[in-house]
Amino acid sequence: MRIAFIGLGIMGGPMAGHLQRGGHDVVVFNRTQSKAEAWVAEYGGRSALTPREAAADADVVCACVGADHDVREVTVGDEGAFPAMKADAIFVDHTTASAAVARELYGAARARGLHFIDAPVSGGQAGAQKGQLSVMCGGDAEPFARIEPVLRGYGKSVVRIGDSGAGQLCKMVNQLCIAGLVQGLAEGLHFAQNAGLDVPAVISVISKGAAQSWQMENRWQTMVDGKFEFGFAVDWMRKDLGIVLEEARRNGSRLPVAALVDQFYAQIQARGGARWDTSSLIALLDNQ
Amino acid sequence: MRIAFIGLGIMGGPMAGHLQRGGHDVVVFNRTQSKAEAWVAEYGGRSALTPREAAADADVVCACVGADHDVREVTVGDEGAFPAMKADAIFVDHTTASAAVARELYGAARARGLHFIDAPVSGGQAGAQKGQLSVMCGGDAEPFARIEPVLRGYGKSVVRIGDSGAGQLCKMVNQLCIAGLVQGLAEGLHFAQNAGLDVPAVISVISKGAAQSWQMENRWQTMVDGKFEFGFAVDWMRKDLGIVLEEARRNGSRLPVAALVDQFYAQIQARGGARWDTSSLIALLDNQ
Repeated sequence: MRIAFIGLGIMGGPMAGHLQRGGHDVVVFNRTQSKAEAWVAEYGGRSALTPREAAADADVVCACVGADHDVREVTVGDEGAFPAMKADAIFVDHTTASAAVARELYGAARARGLHFIDAPVSGGQAGAQKGQLSVMCGGDAEPFARIEPVLRGYGKSVVRIGDSGAGQLCKMVNQLCIAGLVQGLAEGLHFAQNAGLDVPAVISVISKGAAQSWQMENRWQTMVDGKFEFGFAVDWMRKDLGIVLEEARRNGSRLPVAALVDQFYAQIQARGGARWDTSSLIALLDNQ
Repeated sequence: MRIAFIGLGIMGGPMAGHLQRGGHDVVVFNRTQSKAEAWVAEYGGRSALTPREAAADADVVCACVGADHDVREVTVGDEGAFPAMKADAIFVDHTTASAAVARELYGAARARGLHFIDAPVSGGQAGAQKGQLSVMCGGDAEPFARIEPVLRGYGKSVVRIGDSGAGQLCKMVNQLCIAGLVQGLAEGLHFAQNAGLDVPAVISVISKGAAQSWQMENRWQTMVDGKFEFGFAVDWMRKDLGIVLEEARRNGSRLPVAALVDQFYAQIQARGGARWDTSSLIALLDNQ
């Protein structure tokens, strides 16, 4: 299949790589041109100078960029992909963005005879490299059925949650669950250390019961060690929680702990931890 | 082995039953005598009229009662077990109580030539019935080694965390992790419903990634259905969080979300949900 891939960051780069290695004909675009050249040197394929050029003749155009305004730019902006896409082609947006922008661009795509699927991912850099992401999709069933086999190139779980915007809303639910969970874990580990407990022994017991979580199993050691120079950055989590809290204003949800944890992340940013992993909430408690 | 078991509630009853069926010679005591008679009718063994009578000649005395003052009563109270226990016998307290009372009774036991192990459990009523509890122990290594095979009668995981009080402190870490985690899950599900999402589809994706937890897998359905008439009651969670917050004052821990969630549970009590499961935090958000 002819696929364009826009945005070769730490997620998009390996995702596009899986498509090229999976036998697709991939043309990439990245704002910083040197990254696109490095990608071609590593994986093969071709690079283009604009999203529009990459999208010409593509069956599917994937994007994994920064935020709402970036998604607008690469679709309906001056050098955006939409005008170059052929009829019935599908734009798949892997950016974590608002449900509002997803619906807006879904409408713009349909008006041009194109399709738009919002498809944010979770699983982080490691998941992108291993091709083991979870992909949460919103949009029409027919184009979803066509792109699902493509997305399996990097998705261990590819699910259509519902109509346009539902993928983004699903990602928000994911981030909400994580916010409270990581803060609870941080408070537990902070208390365990202050109580002088043997933390590995504590984890060996409580990770088998009702307190168990992926975060506990994968983050307790680095949290106790105060290692945060990896993973999903506080800056990104704040972007996501900003989207969630704005959407919650719209749909009337009450999110007291998510709003509080968002403020904790603001404190971490203020002390220079903007690039730290989300698990750095414990640093605020420990005064690291 | 001759074992006394004090307290035949929804946890203690099945736990004592596993010991009797495992071939031990069990004598039970319960404040409401009819429960002890019902237990003997179901499992065999014998019942006693006081903790002291049950403890006479026992190698091990287990207790699973309500709170600190109950533990004091059944050990050093008027009809308490300690004076009747033979030299070198071991008192195992499965109550979730304070680390302070554990250390106090550890001292009182040692002064009489006895042993005291704090050994709170997690795993709930289902874990007690299946003999699949996690048992978190604090106390001396030698008596722990003697009682460990006994506790395996109902514990899938029996770990000595450290010296006297460490079992209770470990249980507190468990409850702290759960408090933040369940609130995060409640906010996520509340938002998902307000957003009109297909919740089973959402869970099918996010339960495979970084938001995964035991609570998500085992409670999302009942939370969405508003079913809370089961499980670990809000009253018990408030007791436990009270112990945690008091201990945190002592050891200087900061627990902003646990303190907030404790107040949410107080609101649930105020609207008549004292016996509801801990997962009822979502009811406050949904205004159920």
